[in-house]
Amino acid sequence: MTDAATPTPRHDGRTPDQLREVRITRNWLDHAEGSCLVEFGRTRVLCAASFTEGVPRWLKGQGTGWVTSEYEMLPRSTNTRSDREARKGKVGGRTHEISRLIGRSLRAVIDTKALGENTIVIDCDVLQADGGTRTASITGAYVALADAIADAQARGLIAKKAKPLTDSVAAISVGIVAGHPVLDLDYPEDSTAETDMNVVMTGSGGIVEVQGTAEGAPFSRDELNALLDLAADGIADLTTKQRDALAADARERLQ
Amino acid sequence: MTDAATPTPRHDGRTPDQLREVRITRNWLDHAEGSCLVEFGRTRVLCAASFTEGVPRWLKGQGTGWVTSEYEMLPRSTNTRSDREARKGKVGGRTHEISRLIGRSLRAVIDTKALGENTIVIDCDVLQADGGTRTASITGAYVALADAIADAQARGLIAKKAKPLTDSVAAISVGIVAGHPVLDLDYPEDSTAETDMNVVMTGSGGIVEVQGTAEGAPFSRDELNALLDLAADGIADLTTKQRDALAADARERLQ
Amino acid sequence: MTDAATPTPRHDGRTPDQLREVRITRNWLDHAEGSCLVEFGRTRVLCAASFTEGVPRWLKGQGTGWVTSEYEMLPRSTNTRSDREARKGKVGGRTHEISRLIGRSLRAVIDTKALGENTIVIDCDVLQADGGTRTASITGAYVALADAIADAQARGLIAKKAKPLTDSVAAISVGIVAGHPVLDLDYPEDSTAETDMNVVMTGSGGIVEVQGTAEGAPFSRDELNALLDLAADGIADLTTKQRDALAADARERLQ
Amino acid sequence: MTDAATPTPRHDGRTPDQLREVRITRNWLDHAEGSCLVEFGRTRVLCAASFTEGVPRWLKGQGTGWVTSEYEMLPRSTNTRSDREARKGKVGGRTHEISRLIGRSLRAVIDTKALGENTIVIDCDVLQADGGTRTASITGAYVALADAIADAQARGLIAKKAKPLTDSVAAISVGIVAGHPVLDLDYPEDSTAETDMNVVMTGSGGIVEVQGTAEGAPFSRDELNALLDLAADGIADLTTKQRDALAADARERLQ
Amino acid sequence: MTDAATPTPRHDGRTPDQLREVRITRNWLDHAEGSCLVEFGRTRVLCAASFTEGVPRWLKGQGTGWVTSEYEMLPRSTNTRSDREARKGKVGGRTHEISRLIGRSLRAVIDTKALGENTIVIDCDVLQADGGTRTASITGAYVALADAIADAQARGLIAKKAKPLTDSVAAISVGIVAGHPVLDLDYPEDSTAETDMNVVMTGSGGIVEVQGTAEGAPFSRDELNALLDLAADGIADLTTKQRDALAADARERLQ
Amino acid sequence: MTDAATPTPRHDGRTPDQLREVRITRNWLDHAEGSCLVEFGRTRVLCAASFTEGVPRWLKGQGTGWVTSEYEMLPRSTNTRSDREARKGKVGGRTHEISRLIGRSLRAVIDTKALGENTIVIDCDVLQADGGTRTASITGAYVALADAIADAQARGLIAKKAKPLTDSVAAISVGIVAGHPVLDLDYPEDSTAETDMNVVMTGSGGIVEVQGTAEGAPFSRDELNALLDLAADGIADLTTKQRDALAADARERLQ
Repeated sequence: MTDAATPTPRHDGRTPDQLREVRITRNWLDHAEGSCLVEFGRTRVLCAASFTEGVPRWLKGQGTGWVTSEYEMLPRSTNTRSDREARKGKVGGRTHEISRLIGRSLRAVIDTKALGENTIVIDCDVLQADGGTRTASITGAYVALADAIADAQARGLIAKKAKPLTDSVAAISVGIVAGHPVLDLDYPEDSTAETDMNVVMTGSGGIVEVQGTAEGAPFSRDELNALLDLAADGIADLTTKQRDALAADARERLQ
Repeated sequence: MTDAATPTPRHDGRTPDQLREVRITRNWLDHAEGSCLVEFGRTRVLCAASFTEGVPRWLKGQGTGWVTSEYEMLPRSTNTRSDREARKGKVGGRTHEISRLIGRSLRAVIDTKALGENTIVIDCDVLQADGGTRTASITGAYVALADAIADAQARGLIAKKAKPLTDSVAAISVGIVAGHPVLDLDYPEDSTAETDMNVVMTGSGGIVEVQGTAEGAPFSRDELNALLDLAADGIADLTTKQRDALAADARERLQ
Repeated sequence: MTDAATPTPRHDGRTPDQLREVRITRNWLDHAEGSCLVEFGRTRVLCAASFTEGVPRWLKGQGTGWVTSEYEMLPRSTNTRSDREARKGKVGGRTHEISRLIGRSLRAVIDTKALGENTIVIDCDVLQADGGTRTASITGAYVALADAIADAQARGLIAKKAKPLTDSVAAISVGIVAGHPVLDLDYPEDSTAETDMNVVMTGSGGIVEVQGTAEGAPFSRDELNALLDLAADGIADLTTKQRDALAADARERLQ
Repeated sequence: MTDAATPTPRHDGRTPDQLREVRITRNWLDHAEGSCLVEFGRTRVLCAASFTEGVPRWLKGQGTGWVTSEYEMLPRSTNTRSDREARKGKVGGRTHEISRLIGRSLRAVIDTKALGENTIVIDCDVLQADGGTRTASITGAYVALADAIADAQARGLIAKKAKPLTDSVAAISVGIVAGHPVLDLDYPEDSTAETDMNVVMTGSGGIVEVQGTAEGAPFSRDELNALLDLAADGIADLTTKQRDALAADARERLQ
Repeated sequence: MTDAATPTPRHDGRTPDQLREVRITRNWLDHAEGSCLVEFGRTRVLCAASFTEGVPRWLKGQGTGWVTSEYEMLPRSTNTRSDREARKGKVGGRTHEISRLIGRSLRAVIDTKALGENTIVIDCDVLQADGGTRTASITGAYVALADAIADAQARGLIAKKAKPLTDSVAAISVGIVAGHPVLDLDYPEDSTAETDMNVVMTGSGGIVEVQGTAEGAPFSRDELNALLDLAADGIADLTTKQRDALAADARERLQ
Repeated sequence: MTDAATPTPRHDGRTPDQLREVRITRNWLDHAEGSCLVEFGRTRVLCAASFTEGVPRWLKGQGTGWVTSEYEMLPRSTNTRSDREARKGKVGGRTHEISRLIGRSLRAVIDTKALGENTIVIDCDVLQADGGTRTASITGAYVALADAIADAQARGLIAKKAKPLTDSVAAISVGIVAGHPVLDLDYPEDSTAETDMNVVMTGSGGIVEVQGTAEGAPFSRDELNALLDLAADGIADLTTKQRDALAADARERLQ
């Protein structure tokens, strides 16, 4: 492992600690209570938040709401076409795993009591995949969720004074590629990384989820620490971009 | 039934024979051999054509290619969220029906011999639905298909002199709404139409598919004829838009 | 295309506008509230109407009834055996499509208010297939439906004065075979037809559904008109056969 | 338990050892290599034997054939409608159990070596159920199987001198109803029987399968013996009916 | 067939009427209301009885309880690994059949009125299979069921004076191996048996279920009688072992 | 957060850095090439390694082997019974996620080249669950895997000199419970933990996988470090226990 501070060559010219171009286009959809198209470079995910009154049966009568998520990739989001999970008649393990991760990440910044007995489902559909689809999904899902909550408060479905969001949340991937820790891996980097880690953090810097996997050789505590440092900085940048997107006038959209 | 020529009031101000704004954004995706985002007003469908060498087993060794299609709606493409078919573990009847219709429509303008033993799958994923998703899908799928064939010819996977496309194909819905035949129904019109018909025609005016259904009272031969007249004109307009889109320089994309 | 009026040779000696032998054997089953075995030549479909009080949840409390249908082919109804859909664990696209068509066709002649909050399911099981299974199904399903309604009225489950049936309904296939428009295609004709159309009409001549597909070259408006003329005459004949069958004393059955 | 020889009253007037009216209509289908409609009173099962060259992969190259069976009930074969297994997406336990029983019963009289590497599938579809559907299925399936083998020998697909059938096979239900052992239970008897037993035997009197179940109180060895005596006589009668049916000229069919 | 009394050589040295070593280890699990690990030689089944208040919807309000069972084999319980049924997405026919048999056998000794509106599910999971998994399951399931009922009575969930168990129940396999009737077949015997029979009997000697199948040649009434004699003696031994196990102090467990 | 070194009260009296009693019983099964029953306190998992020659199709001809795993919980392993995944017709998200984690962890210490074109599947079936089922599974699966490899080398199916295992691997859970970092959470601790982390490490101290989740409030880098320290010590203990178990004479088993 070489020093992460040394700008080592990445195939697209980024420095080790540089994000791809991140774009968040709010209100990409007309029907959804909150939505955005989030782009991390060529990775493009459509996040749609659906607000419904009421909660699943197992939560009824407890005065708390529910936030959950479903993730799926379009068949030709990838380099070569994959079969649709609906056609195969079952949801794959990876799809389930990522859906659950997004839901947990969002619930980490939700006060379900303040939400009231309401449910918000955030659908994250990957239109194009180039690495980091789960981290883009979490980052965009937060924006769609925030808009859906604002919309519900505007319509009086959630109390105006309630603060269902306790913080913001974003996610980024880090990994060791060719011996160097780097931030925000695209697909060519991801598929050759020795170690791959996804980190989810709140806007105020708390860790929500850390998932690190040695794809090749096991990694050391020092390497783990270098990766966590990179991730913390990257998430701070994403937090700014989320805040900027949400500060803009709502209901403008992609032209 | 009143005279279709009389401009009767439609809720969005269109004349009976007027299409919604139609936009075809080619090469919306980076990986797919051909793709477009097609919009009929607020209806938005992402069409991705995937080219692969070889054919399904039942076609092998016959020297002919295969074109097929899969259609699906994102869960929040509609006004209220629908469950994902992958989660339900099966593809619904309507989804199957439309997938088959798109495939048949495209095959009507394909010379499978000229295609060689190659397969093209066109995925039509509805990002937003406001009526006419199947007709927008067919219209956009043709453009994605044409690009995928051009790409395969450029790469030498299909003989450069071959002409796999024998014509263009497009589709439009017509229906009787509040007693009047109208063209290109949006969702509010579609859900109140007495009769609903989808027409698929080639660029040279041949009929590929007619599917007319009395939602309320049965309809007469005269009404059927009025609807077919509207459809023929609408499809002529769509054919022009397809030709214009394909004439533009390729590989430009949505900014 | 040659003139449909000219008797062109069909492989079984029929004239272009001639139906196969049609037989409707009412009350073929002992348990069902209405049933018939309908035969279009060698095509044989068992139609069973099941009456139950109550409606699906989404219809409750609206004072209206529901009519639906399920179609399926026995594995050895066809020339070579097909796998059972139950074994494959899913219902195929074609099966869904035809089930939905039969249901829509029957609902076109039902006043659901007059039916009261009752449900009738018509099962159409193809015992032997030789082309035209969907049109035979619709034609037979109407007879089973009429008997089930009469039975429910006799038992006081539907008001005796109510008129849930507003008309009769029947269906026939037409197509262009070897350049000639012909009526009621059997399997050998159907598998070589250039154009195939199924037409559903009421006893009083209203069009309920038109589904025309170019299997080979697209077809023209003139051809479409010739086919619709043939269909209208064929359905008039089927309407007479339905009326005759229903006029006979009930509860006689196949010996 | 009273003496089975004493004619105790059955609800339909039969003596304890009396079969319902049994009818076997051969060649009920035009496409299948062998078929019959078998009726035990109101129970009606359509048996279709499909012959195909080749065997499942796990049997290849061993020079032996395969005989198997699939059983299913039409949704309205019963008093009240049941959901289709295809719609439920899985085959129920009872359906599997009976399919396996029919297959085992037929294989007990098959010399798979003499069959050569060929497969025969016998589909038993219950058109109407009034008790004894599995025993009627086995009895009818044997007839369809015999016809399919004869057909394959006539066409030279099985050696003319081969004797794939080593015996005939038939089945009947027996049970203890209101304290009395009785033969061939119909549905009202079956649903109130204390003990219910299905017996499968060859034409020469060997036992192939015995399945006895105490529905209420356990039963004694004496009762078991009385039931087996009844079954042996009933199966002797069925064997005669099978032989008579097969002796008649083939290819006549239901008019 | 030779005389069953003559000690003919079995591959493991047992006499024809000898059980394998049978061990019943009660309370093998800490959570279940009743449980045991039952071993018939190398066959090892974990039986767990789960008590829940309430009954399935179709039984509600009738004042009666419900006992059912589910059987499954671990993928590597057998000599070579089998795929998990959960991965295949459906429960196989054999699994369903055995689950149903265990449930019926237990219900034969249950007074469902005395059980009250409570449900007991007995899960029988085969940890290791060496023939006789269904008979070991029934024998062990009875012990787990008895413990679950005792536990529910101790907790006051079933009336202390109620007697939900009317008898005990156990099961054993018998078969004709190399021409000799033998008791309790292990896998090598089972896979070469000419006839295979499973017998379920109560502690007081009543027959609950007899399932005999000719795997090779059909069998005679004399053979059937010899097998039933062997089974009756074997079940008497199992009944003693069940009684001894239940007499020991509860809540001791495997060390 | 208080100091992890201070022995804070745990409900079962353990110190913060104390494992539950760990037992590894090798060769618990007779058929499997390697197997063990691993117990972490009351958590009991049966690990069975199945060796088969050959690899999945997508790996053929590359000279490398494959190791994978499947995890499942018995329905009554938990406090209250859960439905079987096989009955529900699909494998749940959590089950998939853990199966994938076990497989990845084992592959981290496998040299697939040295394995040759052979496949080893390790089934981890949870017989009883009390927290930490995934970490017990990984720890036991390694032992079963080591035995299966030794067995294959003894039988000459893997070259005797090959070293397919490059290291050992074990896993443990850590978490913050009532403000204190603790090791090896049981179910009561796991269900109230604020943060829950699973750590997989090799015998030589490399990190294979880190999965940390904030169940309540996000956690800090300091907390993360305290948890990783605890985990490293716990895994060192587990590594010793694995080595001791594997050092004992093989083929002894549970009495």
